[in-house]
Amino acid sequence: MTDQYQIKKNNKVRQLSKKASYDKETVHAILDAGLVAHVAFNQENGPVVVPMLYGRKKNKIFLHGARKARIIRLLEKTNRASLNVTLLDGIVLARSTFNSSMHYRSVTIFGKPKIILNDQEKLSAMKIISENTIPGRWDEVRDSHAKEIKMTGVIELTIEDASAKISSGPPDDEIEDYKIPIWAGVLPITTKTGKLQRDEKLMEGIKPSQNMLALQNKKL
Amino acid sequence: MTDQYQIKKNNKVRQLSKKASYDKETVHAILDAGLVAHVAFNQENGPVVVPMLYGRKKNKIFLHGARKARIIRLLEKTNRASLNVTLLDGIVLARSTFNSSMHYRSVTIFGKPKIILNDQEKLSAMKIISENTIPGRWDEVRDSHAKEIKMTGVIELTIEDASAKISSGPPDDEIEDYKIPIWAGVLPITTKTGKLQRDEKLMEGIKPSQNMLALQNKKL
Repeated sequence: MTDQYQIKKNNKVRQLSKKASYDKETVHAILDAGLVAHVAFNQENGPVVVPMLYGRKKNKIFLHGARKARIIRLLEKTNRASLNVTLLDGIVLARSTFNSSMHYRSVTIFGKPKIILNDQEKLSAMKIISENTIPGRWDEVRDSHAKEIKMTGVIELTIEDASAKISSGPPDDEIEDYKIPIWAGVLPITTKTGKLQRDEKLMEGIKPSQNMLALQNKKL
Repeated sequence: MTDQYQIKKNNKVRQLSKKASYDKETVHAILDAGLVAHVAFNQENGPVVVPMLYGRKKNKIFLHGARKARIIRLLEKTNRASLNVTLLDGIVLARSTFNSSMHYRSVTIFGKPKIILNDQEKLSAMKIISENTIPGRWDEVRDSHAKEIKMTGVIELTIEDASAKISSGPPDDEIEDYKIPIWAGVLPITTKTGKLQRDEKLMEGIKPSQNMLALQNKKL
């Protein structure tokens, strides 16, 4: 049996449940492929959703923002936060609107956020976020200044509940609809990095590292 | 003066406020370019965020899901929902972690959701969502069956507050950091549609329409 997140009332996928997975490997792979998480939290008059960079280590997600940012202050105080990471892979052009859909890899996480105050722990978490976003960059850039660490708010979210939902494959039309003379299939969608663009203010003769070159033309 | 969404406590952008815009044209252009909105709502023990397809007409956003889906039932009952649409355009490789950032186009919307119960209004809203996702497809596919319309829950969200945030340009490093001998610049990220993939169950001799062919190799 594979290692799974427990299925509870909160994270149980009810719609298109055949596409659901609670397998840790599947959940973590989608988290590791994504760049931006959409994080939900409550403010005075209702829920808000904010896109944030993140990183994962084991069953913990790390998020960061300006120390004084509303999202950091509110996440610090809340007992339960939720985030979703979705990667779009295509549009399914079925023979009816009803059966048309998307190809995607999506993960929803629930957990208790905790603010990290210790500078060393903060730096470790910042490195995890940086390496998820730009692998290999952390060791190339200059060290963070004490003031910068102070100005950064870092949240650790331990995954309590999680579910993944993956949709792929051809259109799934009604049997009688296959006789309709209309083109059907899939329009793939790909998110890719391109070619490195040099900063005009870069000093002469500096080349990108092997790590940075390796980030080019990669599919998310 | 351009037509703007009012700046209120809720939608005022506080972090990196130079990148903010409340201009209706800017907000709507990002909404029209995106495919998936992340919608936040509250359930019993806290906020949840769900990716959903959407469409826009004037100052209204339309969302849909299974009529009995939790998100439709909860959106129907709530007075205030929030959604975010973010398009990633690149990673800014600055000379420090602190100044590294992303290129993006992002919109956050707040509004009151209302469920649409009238079948004709529902169909109009479903067409708006379909045309935002797959322009030209609505008139090609077979008509929706009465049962399908009944099984679909459609939410109309009138935009009350909105803000956009757009980030582009080269790294913005500390003056003294430009002397560090490290490569800096931008790694572009592009989300693009690819080449149409034919359903294997498609009848012989059926070609995609001009509208479907036009969707290929397009940048979001």
